[in-house]
Amino acid sequence: MDFMTDPMEIERRSMEIIKPHLAGLDLGEAEVKVYSRIIHAAGDVEYAPIIRIHPHAIAAAQEAMRKGRNIYTDVEMVRTGINKKKLAVFGGEVKCLIADDKVAAMAKAEGITRSMAAMRTFGKELDGSIVAIGNAPTALFEVLRMVEEENILPAAIVGIPVGFVGAADSKELLAKNTKVPYITVEGTKGGSPIAAAAINAMLYLL
Amino acid sequence: MDFMTDPMEIERRSMEIIKPHLAGLDLGEAEVKVYSRIIHAAGDVEYAPIIRIHPHAIAAAQEAMRKGRNIYTDVEMVRTGINKKKLAVFGGEVKCLIADDKVAAMAKAEGITRSMAAMRTFGKELDGSIVAIGNAPTALFEVLRMVEEENILPAAIVGIPVGFVGAADSKELLAKNTKVPYITVEGTKGGSPIAAAAINAMLYLL
Repeated sequence: MDFMTDPMEIERRSMEIIKPHLAGLDLGEAEVKVYSRIIHAAGDVEYAPIIRIHPHAIAAAQEAMRKGRNIYTDVEMVRTGINKKKLAVFGGEVKCLIADDKVAAMAKAEGITRSMAAMRTFGKELDGSIVAIGNAPTALFEVLRMVEEENILPAAIVGIPVGFVGAADSKELLAKNTKVPYITVEGTKGGSPIAAAAINAMLYLL
Repeated sequence: MDFMTDPMEIERRSMEIIKPHLAGLDLGEAEVKVYSRIIHAAGDVEYAPIIRIHPHAIAAAQEAMRKGRNIYTDVEMVRTGINKKKLAVFGGEVKCLIADDKVAAMAKAEGITRSMAAMRTFGKELDGSIVAIGNAPTALFEVLRMVEEENILPAAIVGIPVGFVGAADSKELLAKNTKVPYITVEGTKGGSPIAAAAINAMLYLL
């Protein structure tokens, strides 16, 4: 059992292995970091051609982070995955309402998912903040509805829900929106560590 | 924006989409559930041919769950992803020491990862319990060392660390061990939601 045990060395070597898979993608320095952390978190180089980053997304998210704006997540796993100590340096917190009793009651009463009810409950708070969705397509659909119908404008949306029902559609809709810069992944793949990785990559560059 | 909002219906439809991808794999009923939840969590049907379940793993893990044994995880995201309410019905808890100060100090002093130090600190507690690793190859290497050198025998190991440095090797070693039944995934893919999905699939069958 001969293996690396130094965390810094493991990360350095991992990034080195990922690098050739980004060749030919014409990425900026910050984009390379986001791509690399996503691929690292998934252990899957096939993410490289399906990641989509709006040209203003990284700068907009980082500006919001620097201003101490909060990050709003759909599920607890995304909250857990985000480096909250680093975010707190600038004054921001990570908020999630999926386990909230009122949100659960709203979801049940309206026949919607809890993460969708959670986003609706955040409402105007999302204005100027960062949204990070790593699980529920319904949460992303709801945020996009709020953008269109209620003119609630997050600074950036990291929208990487996962799965076979709605995920690909919700991410396609995100990439078509013209009001909020986004980071997403085409198709069915995604998940909490992927959304958290995108956020952390941007945080670590600050 | 026409999309499903009923959680039960979303899950049913998702499992229906996954089903044909399991055709020809010769799986038992419980195995189908574990495979399906893993694929669902990753949004990636390419997991189907790389999942490995030891013939006794599901029964052994479920027996430990029924006895109220704890589940020990390498990182907080795996703990977050496991349905702790369902586990608590039988008396079990999910334990994670990655954020523990003593573990951090041990890791620093010995030049090892925190998750590796965490597994070493659990020590004999792992005997008869369930180990769930969704992030760190080093944690899995350490548990396998404890199995071999210290005769610490978990009831089952869900070992699905992720990444390009050590993950594939640690999982290969897990699948070669002859003392503890395991659930794993070949290669670089894996992650916290994958490990949690395997655990939850077994819990939901109880």
